[in-house]
Amino acid sequence: MDDVLADTSIKIISEINKRLNKSYSMPELLSNDVRKMEFYQDYLAHNSFLKEPGFFLDLPVKENAVEIVKELGKHYEIFIVSAATEFPESLKEKLSWLEEHFPFISWTHVVFCGHKYMIQADYLIDDHEKNLRTFSTGTPLLFSALHNLHIEGYERVNSWNEIGNLLIPHE
Amino acid sequence: MDDVLADTSIKIISEINKRLNKSYSMPELLSNDVRKMEFYQDYLAHNSFLKEPGFFLDLPVKENAVEIVKELGKHYEIFIVSAATEFPESLKEKLSWLEEHFPFISWTHVVFCGHKYMIQADYLIDDHEKNLRTFSTGTPLLFSALHNLHIEGYERVNSWNEIGNLLIPHE
Repeated sequence: MDDVLADTSIKIISEINKRLNKSYSMPELLSNDVRKMEFYQDYLAHNSFLKEPGFFLDLPVKENAVEIVKELGKHYEIFIVSAATEFPESLKEKLSWLEEHFPFISWTHVVFCGHKYMIQADYLIDDHEKNLRTFSTGTPLLFSALHNLHIEGYERVNSWNEIGNLLIPHE
Repeated sequence: MDDVLADTSIKIISEINKRLNKSYSMPELLSNDVRKMEFYQDYLAHNSFLKEPGFFLDLPVKENAVEIVKELGKHYEIFIVSAATEFPESLKEKLSWLEEHFPFISWTHVVFCGHKYMIQADYLIDDHEKNLRTFSTGTPLLFSALHNLHIEGYERVNSWNEIGNLLIPHE
């Protein structure tokens, strides 16, 4: 979910700016490694807001995620698998968020977990190398995010449109 | 979790008795099919308490579950997989319950889902035939519960002691 369906990084940047009176922006962090390192230092020291009620309720949806996931659903069985059990407050909020933005995804196809390596699937679209590295039953796809731009060795997708082009069968 | 680690049926019987002014008991339901049918009719018509805050917080632990799961953890990697995403209120409560009674199980090994058929494992210990039937990567074990006594075709375990005898390697 986070940084694949939901633009969690955008909200994290905004929370850090608000709480520490900073002015980080995504374009700046993408282009300036020194600022990116400063940002991650701030984030690691001040990320308790992730555990506060409400954080996961109003995350922006990634561009075209709804349309492409809906279209993929015509050709694949889709599970939403979120490493979320570390954040007890997030679970109900993540269900609400999915219901709001992806009402066509049933609770039967939502999985909250810690490790993901006991999941079997044909594809895993994920922003974390640790999840892709241990995915043993199919094709891992690395969804580009601020924190994974340095990762190599995986097929990379930069947007939901790219995922659509890759996975939606052409007529 | 429910009716495997936690004695959910006992609490359901107690809630039905309290709310409908009935006097069902587990020994009676186990031995009297007419009363069992009456009970399930009451349950199906009055089970909204499952979605109320607090229901999953104080479930009794199944006899010897803690000791045997802890011992199994020395020989197996254990995931707790609960079909719980139908009940948004339950998720945080289930994490609290696990933390209270099974503090040696990390959040990394807790999975809340709907369907379970995308889980790969060597064994699945479950009280529902629908979960065992679609389990494709290992050995299904049917944990006896009031609602599954009529199910045939699966290896059945009646208690955590039986699971221990079956799965803990003998010295």
